[in-house]
Amino acid sequence: MNNKISKAVISRLPRYYRYLKELIDQGVERISSEELSRLMKATASQIRQDLNHFGGFGQQGYGYNVKSLYKEIGKILGVEEDHHIIVLGAGNLGRALVKYNGFSEHGFIFCSLFDVDETLCGKSVNGVRIRTISEAEEYVKTHNIDIAALTIPVEKAREMSVLLYQAGIRYFWNFTNIDLQLPEDAIVKDVHLLDSLLELSYRICNEK
Amino acid sequence: MNNKISKAVISRLPRYYRYLKELIDQGVERISSEELSRLMKATASQIRQDLNHFGGFGQQGYGYNVKSLYKEIGKILGVEEDHHIIVLGAGNLGRALVKYNGFSEHGFIFCSLFDVDETLCGKSVNGVRIRTISEAEEYVKTHNIDIAALTIPVEKAREMSVLLYQAGIRYFWNFTNIDLQLPEDAIVKDVHLLDSLLELSYRICNEK
Repeated sequence: MNNKISKAVISRLPRYYRYLKELIDQGVERISSEELSRLMKATASQIRQDLNHFGGFGQQGYGYNVKSLYKEIGKILGVEEDHHIIVLGAGNLGRALVKYNGFSEHGFIFCSLFDVDETLCGKSVNGVRIRTISEAEEYVKTHNIDIAALTIPVEKAREMSVLLYQAGIRYFWNFTNIDLQLPEDAIVKDVHLLDSLLELSYRICNEK
Repeated sequence: MNNKISKAVISRLPRYYRYLKELIDQGVERISSEELSRLMKATASQIRQDLNHFGGFGQQGYGYNVKSLYKEIGKILGVEEDHHIIVLGAGNLGRALVKYNGFSEHGFIFCSLFDVDETLCGKSVNGVRIRTISEAEEYVKTHNIDIAALTIPVEKAREMSVLLYQAGIRYFWNFTNIDLQLPEDAIVKDVHLLDSLLELSYRICNEK
């Protein structure tokens, strides 16, 4: 059933998940689609439609039970399973990702960092070992890795993404400044930091 | 004129900018809309339409001059002007942003970091001074700051974004796990890292 859910709905689920988490933290136990719509700046009918995809947790006159909706959406998003990540690039960004503890509570486990700098080899960041980048392919083949996060320079990113794909990786978290060129069954989530800054600078220059 | 350009076109400009930079690095001097469309996986007519918004740099039978198109799009995106950024949060992510030198070449200048931890006060990261977060409001009022990057915990982010807005900041680069609640003239670019990971984990769980 879940396979038929549109990409648009899927891309909205993490946002529901975030808002529900905040409501839990605030001690809110139940919420109507109308209240949720005001909070999330979406229409109540959109919210009802989206959440109906998953069997509909809402009850007329009661609204949604925040905790169970949070748990159900989490389950759909896969947070109850572990996901293993390797990070290519042990620079500032790669290290920051591995040091951030907010991912592990949702099942994301950093297994290894890889870097071109061989002097880093054997060191650890937040308990995660750094290996040389030439070991990445073999590591992926011999470990159960789901996601490769790329925080390496552009020249290396193109080559390494193809190598990792050939070694079996299908899910990429791409922080490099390029679009990866991979076969269609590779799923890439881009975090193009410079793009978002450039959109801001455009707005700054054209709204002053 | 630029004010009439649709948001969709604007959001595509940084991507053109990236591809053109890569072409320059590869020594490519000119490119047709057809070649660019194959590379960027967009239709040639979309590319021609998008670039026509800016006076149209292409010449029939010649294509686009890569360097001058790059320079023009950069100018439109505002990279020839300096943009001043403060970073709230001198943790791993805040430090990584300030240490990355790839932003400065496009005119983005980090002016100060701010943190709740007073023991960090007076220290520097990549030449950028850390101040206590209680100084942020006054700093914004007395310096020419365009953008506030938020890498602070959720509890603090809501309060600080409102304070900074009141102090005059209109452009926010939001790395926190919440949507900011600000008046409509605030421009927020979100980098919700957990959202993108959750989309990946959904795909992993539902495609296996």
